[in-house]
Amino acid sequence: MKRLRLSITGFGTVGQGLAELLVTKRSLLMHNFDFEVTLISVANARHGFIYREDGLDIPTLLELAASRRPLTAHPGVRHWENALEGLRATGGDVLAEATGTNLRDAEPGISHIRAVLEQGMHVITANKGPAALAANELISLAKQHHVQLRMESTVMAGTPVISTIREGMAGAQVRAIRGILNGTTNYILSAMAAGRDYAEALAEAQMHGYAEADPTADVEGYDTLAKTLILSALVFDRPLEPDQITRQGITTLTREHISRAISEGKRIKLVASLRLLPENKAKNAPLEARVEPVELPLSDPLARVDGVTNAIAVQTDTLPEVTIIGPGAGRLQTGQGLLADLIAIANRS
Amino acid sequence: MKRLRLSITGFGTVGQGLAELLVTKRSLLMHNFDFEVTLISVANARHGFIYREDGLDIPTLLELAASRRPLTAHPGVRHWENALEGLRATGGDVLAEATGTNLRDAEPGISHIRAVLEQGMHVITANKGPAALAANELISLAKQHHVQLRMESTVMAGTPVISTIREGMAGAQVRAIRGILNGTTNYILSAMAAGRDYAEALAEAQMHGYAEADPTADVEGYDTLAKTLILSALVFDRPLEPDQITRQGITTLTREHISRAISEGKRIKLVASLRLLPENKAKNAPLEARVEPVELPLSDPLARVDGVTNAIAVQTDTLPEVTIIGPGAGRLQTGQGLLADLIAIANRS
Repeated sequence: MKRLRLSITGFGTVGQGLAELLVTKRSLLMHNFDFEVTLISVANARHGFIYREDGLDIPTLLELAASRRPLTAHPGVRHWENALEGLRATGGDVLAEATGTNLRDAEPGISHIRAVLEQGMHVITANKGPAALAANELISLAKQHHVQLRMESTVMAGTPVISTIREGMAGAQVRAIRGILNGTTNYILSAMAAGRDYAEALAEAQMHGYAEADPTADVEGYDTLAKTLILSALVFDRPLEPDQITRQGITTLTREHISRAISEGKRIKLVASLRLLPENKAKNAPLEARVEPVELPLSDPLARVDGVTNAIAVQTDTLPEVTIIGPGAGRLQTGQGLLADLIAIANRS
Repeated sequence: MKRLRLSITGFGTVGQGLAELLVTKRSLLMHNFDFEVTLISVANARHGFIYREDGLDIPTLLELAASRRPLTAHPGVRHWENALEGLRATGGDVLAEATGTNLRDAEPGISHIRAVLEQGMHVITANKGPAALAANELISLAKQHHVQLRMESTVMAGTPVISTIREGMAGAQVRAIRGILNGTTNYILSAMAAGRDYAEALAEAQMHGYAEADPTADVEGYDTLAKTLILSALVFDRPLEPDQITRQGITTLTREHISRAISEGKRIKLVASLRLLPENKAKNAPLEARVEPVELPLSDPLARVDGVTNAIAVQTDTLPEVTIIGPGAGRLQTGQGLLADLIAIANRS
C-alpha cells in the first residue's frame, strides 16, 4: 500500500473539513484506492507550523481548533513560526493549501505552493487566490518539477467541474461556459424572486451565514470574477487579467427588475460567461469574459438553479451543452474536492 | 510521443463517429495529450475484420462505409471473416468495442472484450450489452491482466457521467442515483406535455429518427434498465440481474395523466433510480432499483429536462446532490465518450 505524507496549510473551515474526511474515509482510501495518508504537518496563521515525523493525530487537532487552543499543544511536535520555513524544512509528498483567498497578491498561499512545487511536492488547493492570479504559471512550475497541481475545489467546491471538463470531457474543445458560481448572490436573487427586496434578502443571507458582514466580495461579483479567471486559465488555457473581465454585481437590482423578469417568464441570475469569439475553432479567437446579471428564459438549465446551489453549462464542439449543478461551498463539500484531487494524485503518481 | 495501436469492432454510427474524431482531433491529441493513434484494424458484421500493420486510412474507411462497399476494398489489408479470430491474430494496444447492443447474451461484444483483455489490450466501449450483463466480471478480468476497461459512452453517451462519479467525485459514497437515461421516451413525454397524445408523440419521435420502427426497447424501459444495470455495477459495485429491477415503461400513460400532473405543477418522467436502503453507510444495505414513470415537482432538477436530453442526479455523503444534464446519444456525442476514455488510457498506461 502506498503511503502519502500530507501537509495542510490553513486550518480553518476548509483545512478542518479535509482533515475530518481523512479520518472518516481512512478505510475507504485503503480498500478502494490502495493508499494511506499520514498528516505530518499543519499550519494556521495564529499558531504557525507544526510537524511530527510519525504523523499528527487528527482528532486532537480538530479539538484544539474547535476550542481555539494553539495547535502547538499537540504532543511531540516541532514548531516553526512561519509556514513557509516549516514547509521548506520538512517537505512531504502532497501539500493541501487551504489558507484564505486573497485576490490582491494571492499570499500567503501562492508562496506556499511555489515553494513546495519546487521541492517536488504535489499540491491540491481550494485557495482561489493563486488559482485566479497565477494558475498557468503554477501549472508550468508543477510540470517542470514533474508533480501535479490540482484545484477542483476552487470552483463550485467539491462539485466536480474542473476535472469533469478537463478529464471527463477530454478531447472536446470548449467554446463557451456560463455559470452561476456564487451561492450568496444566488441565494439573494432567489429570495428576491420570492418577493423580498434586496436589503431583506441580504439580511436573510447574512442570518443564515451565507453572506459575510461585509458582503462586497460576493454581491459586487468579485468572487465570481475570481472563478471566471480560474476557468479562463484552466479550461481555455487563456489566462486573463481581472480588468479584462466586464464585471457588474447585483446591488443595483430592485424587486421591480426581478418581478418584471418573472412576468416575462424569465429569471435574473448573476452569470459568469466565457466564450470564444467567433464561436469557432480558430486558434486565436478572442475570449470574451463577463460577470453580470442576466435574464434567463425558464428553458435555460441555469434559470431554475435556486438558493445557494451553483451550476455551470459548458458548450463544446462534440457535446452541444453539458450542465453540472451542485453545491458551491461548505466544509465537507469543499473537503470532498480536495479529497478527490488527493485520490487522483495517489492514483497517478 | 506515445503511439497507440487501435482496433475498432463495429463500424456503424458509433465506430464511424470515433473514427471521424480520430481524424479531426489528431493534432489536438498530439499537442495536448502527447500521443498518436494508428488505427490498425476494423470489423463489421457484413465484411469481417480487416487489418493493416502500418495503419488504415480513416477517410477511405468512412467513404467505403458511407457507400456501403466492403471494407476489404481498402488497399493492402489482411482479412478475417470473423472479428474474434482477427483480434486474436493481430492484437494491438486498445480495442474500441462498438458493435450493437444485445441485452440477451451481450454477443458478439462480450467475446471481443474478453479475448482482448486476456491478450493484455485495454478496452473502451459504448456497447451496453457487456456493460449491463457483465461489467464486474470484465473489470476483474481487466485488473487481472493489468489493463484498463472504460465504458463512459454506455450511459448518456459522451456526457461525462461514469468518470465524473467514479473519478471526479472519488472518495464520496454514493447513496442514491436518479436519472433520465433514455432520449426517446423523454422526447415522447415532453411532446405529450406539450399536448400530443402518446401515438402522435411516438410518430413524431420516429419521424425525427429518435425512435425506431419497433420502439419496444425504449418505450418499455429496457434501454433504461440496461443503463440502470450498468450504474449498479460501476457506481455501487453491486451487480444486479435484470429481474431484480422493477420496470415499467411509458406505453400506458395517457395525455390525461400528463396534463393532470402539469396542473399540479409536476412533470412525468421515466426515471431510473438506485438507492441504498436505508440511505446510510451500512456496507450491506440492500440496493433498490426501479425504472418507472415518476411525477416530479418543478423544483426537481430532472423535471425540466426536456426533449432527447438526458440527466442524472447523484446523492452522496459529502455532496448532497450533483446533477449532470447533457446529450444521451448521437454519432459524435458517443464518439466523444470513447475519445475521453482513450485519452484517459493514454495518460495512465
